[in-house]
Amino acid sequence: MLLERDLIQATGFRNVRDGDRVTGFQFRVRMPSYRGMPASLIDGIAVRVGDVVDVPAEIPLWTLSGNTYTLRELWASDGARWQLEEAATVTVPFEGGLPQGVHDVHVELKLRMSYIPIEHQPTVHRASRRITLAPEGGDGVFRYGVSLYSFMHDYGTVLDLETALAAVADTGATGVEILGEGHVPNYPEPTTVWIDQWFSLLEKYSLEPTNYGSWIDTRLRPGQAMTAQEGAVALQRDLTLANRLGFGFVRPKIGVVSSDLIPDPIWTESVERSLDLAHELGVVICPEIHSPTPIKHPVVDDYIGLIERTGTKNFGLLIDTGIFQDRPIPLREGETRETRPAFLDGIGVDPADFVDVAQYVVFVQAKFHDINENLEDQQIPWRPVLQALKDAGYNGYLSSEYEGERTPWRSIEQVRRQHSLIRTIASELA
Amino acid sequence: MLLERDLIQATGFRNVRDGDRVTGFQFRVRMPSYRGMPASLIDGIAVRVGDVVDVPAEIPLWTLSGNTYTLRELWASDGARWQLEEAATVTVPFEGGLPQGVHDVHVELKLRMSYIPIEHQPTVHRASRRITLAPEGGDGVFRYGVSLYSFMHDYGTVLDLETALAAVADTGATGVEILGEGHVPNYPEPTTVWIDQWFSLLEKYSLEPTNYGSWIDTRLRPGQAMTAQEGAVALQRDLTLANRLGFGFVRPKIGVVSSDLIPDPIWTESVERSLDLAHELGVVICPEIHSPTPIKHPVVDDYIGLIERTGTKNFGLLIDTGIFQDRPIPLREGETRETRPAFLDGIGVDPADFVDVAQYVVFVQAKFHDINENLEDQQIPWRPVLQALKDAGYNGYLSSEYEGERTPWRSIEQVRRQHSLIRTIASELA
Repeated sequence: MLLERDLIQATGFRNVRDGDRVTGFQFRVRMPSYRGMPASLIDGIAVRVGDVVDVPAEIPLWTLSGNTYTLRELWASDGARWQLEEAATVTVPFEGGLPQGVHDVHVELKLRMSYIPIEHQPTVHRASRRITLAPEGGDGVFRYGVSLYSFMHDYGTVLDLETALAAVADTGATGVEILGEGHVPNYPEPTTVWIDQWFSLLEKYSLEPTNYGSWIDTRLRPGQAMTAQEGAVALQRDLTLANRLGFGFVRPKIGVVSSDLIPDPIWTESVERSLDLAHELGVVICPEIHSPTPIKHPVVDDYIGLIERTGTKNFGLLIDTGIFQDRPIPLREGETRETRPAFLDGIGVDPADFVDVAQYVVFVQAKFHDINENLEDQQIPWRPVLQALKDAGYNGYLSSEYEGERTPWRSIEQVRRQHSLIRTIASELA
Repeated sequence: MLLERDLIQATGFRNVRDGDRVTGFQFRVRMPSYRGMPASLIDGIAVRVGDVVDVPAEIPLWTLSGNTYTLRELWASDGARWQLEEAATVTVPFEGGLPQGVHDVHVELKLRMSYIPIEHQPTVHRASRRITLAPEGGDGVFRYGVSLYSFMHDYGTVLDLETALAAVADTGATGVEILGEGHVPNYPEPTTVWIDQWFSLLEKYSLEPTNYGSWIDTRLRPGQAMTAQEGAVALQRDLTLANRLGFGFVRPKIGVVSSDLIPDPIWTESVERSLDLAHELGVVICPEIHSPTPIKHPVVDDYIGLIERTGTKNFGLLIDTGIFQDRPIPLREGETRETRPAFLDGIGVDPADFVDVAQYVVFVQAKFHDINENLEDQQIPWRPVLQALKDAGYNGYLSSEYEGERTPWRSIEQVRRQHSLIRTIASELA
């Protein structure tokens, strides 16, 4: 497990309940010193949340290694420690709790150091951070998941598998999506130790595997085309591994042969050769409908054609909500609107188009780029999108794919914001 | 294991040898995509180092999962992969290798994606970074180590134990120092699984445990003094754990009773009660002489008094090179020279003072704050300091304590710079 760099952690910020009553909220704080220390050296933490909550240092409760203490109990404790590797959970009594959304949390934490002159004690650490309360609401309308793709560049540098799964579970999500060749060490031959760890972490965090991303790398050999047989071998390798890891959906990303992303024609035979195996394993193959390809498009017609022709239940459509993007992604440093692909301005598919293909859609990747502190998405119009999904009878997963700025740790908080936003909207839909 | 965020990793940058000949250099590159991929999708990496080296994309060799390939061999490979979790090692043939120091490394890495229109392929990733060649030289003058304290705030957020030890070993250091209550999970009762892992990592990275930092928290109970007996219990807990983990030195940080950091008088009895145990375990207790306490000071006289009085071999002095700091640490944001402790400007102890206490010194913590890309330390005058240590016959460890800016990952590169600097100076000393 790893901790976020900020003293105030995003993961763990939630309302707390006593039976049906919401009695307060809690959040996690990383040890600000370079060492762990006996818990009796804690001199309290004052907490302010916006202009709603303002409690003095002696009020919050402390949870360390699973045990909860008042400040006086910490002072009297013997052997209780705030370990460097463990964030402390701070619980603030606050009848009714905090509303959904992003909150401005400030702390003033006091620690009593023995090796600093007494006139400079206690040492005071102040920190502030805008963090999102663990999302709630919208249950039963959709299912909520997160793709580890959301943590691109954070994964393997500031997040390990368990930390990532803990962050996913803490959004209230119940499903997790991975990329086979990305999140499975030593792909395609993970060790049995790793597979055991995978299932034990899923159990620990109450997550189910949803969709597994794979590739059919048609340009595998320079200057040499891939055969349909080779494409089938690649797809079947991933179907088998996905099934071993408990996934019910596999999204193959197929090489393209044109500027407008027409997939290599081998896809049809590669998929058809794999349908028996998919059936046997109980896995659904679902290529993604991804910007700049809209819903009304020959590629989509071809995918549906395969379903109609074969009658298979093991092939379906995956919708990436990036197709509904109706405002541009901001230009990156050095980028101009002339040099970057036009679709980054958004292809603005009408959400009403969804109903035409709804019966074939098995999974939705909830692509997004930036959600501000008022829970306003800057690119994706979630309210009409979610209304269209609901109206068309879709009640499967919305699996977060954060694809915005890759500032370290930003992805964790952005995914929380998205879940807060979409669950709030889902609970308000007609 | 975790990777540094930059594509070009600092750890792993080194000259390579064939027998006695230096035939080139190598460095590690993180996969820039969000997925691992078949190695045949790599289209090469052009490398430029300052104005010394400039090689086209097809020249460097690639090492993936322990196997080394030319670019043509990658293209022909079957099953070889660049895994997302593994940095690739890029080896550039360059007779004679690179000189010691910081180098400006630029790469242009090409990857062939199948799912992007061919006219936009290959995908090119450019990256530049100033990194320090694995330090060499100065062997036999001193021993070189690193304290994991150097990685404060990185440890547990962007570094796990193995990644930290790998970074230490890659500087050419042979010794590692830890803080007991900081780097030992579940201190003071690590699991046997963790202890086994600790020793197996030491073996893997050819490191020996040097010094173990502990605390005598004299302010453990608010408003209640600690007795000498309690101090002894605390010290002995750490002596025992340090010994279990293979350490020969324990630095207790003792609570203070005055503005000029006079240690709590219980220290004498707490230490004396522990000398038999230290002897039995073969551990040397060594409080640190740390700024603002200079070498010529009653506290140091008292420590030496204990050695002289008891004749013990299990108590000695640890010198923190921060006492030699002769230029100020820059003011932090919001800090003024009036409000911060004066000693942060440097107490400038004369290195010549070292000889007076040299016979009692058992360990040196090589404290530093900032070393620029020309290997100039901005605070510590290493040349006279190391000359004084050598002249006085000190040939023990110089154990890095980086204490500068805590920008994530900065510590790794700063420690490399310090080792490059001090080993270069050591090899030039009279």
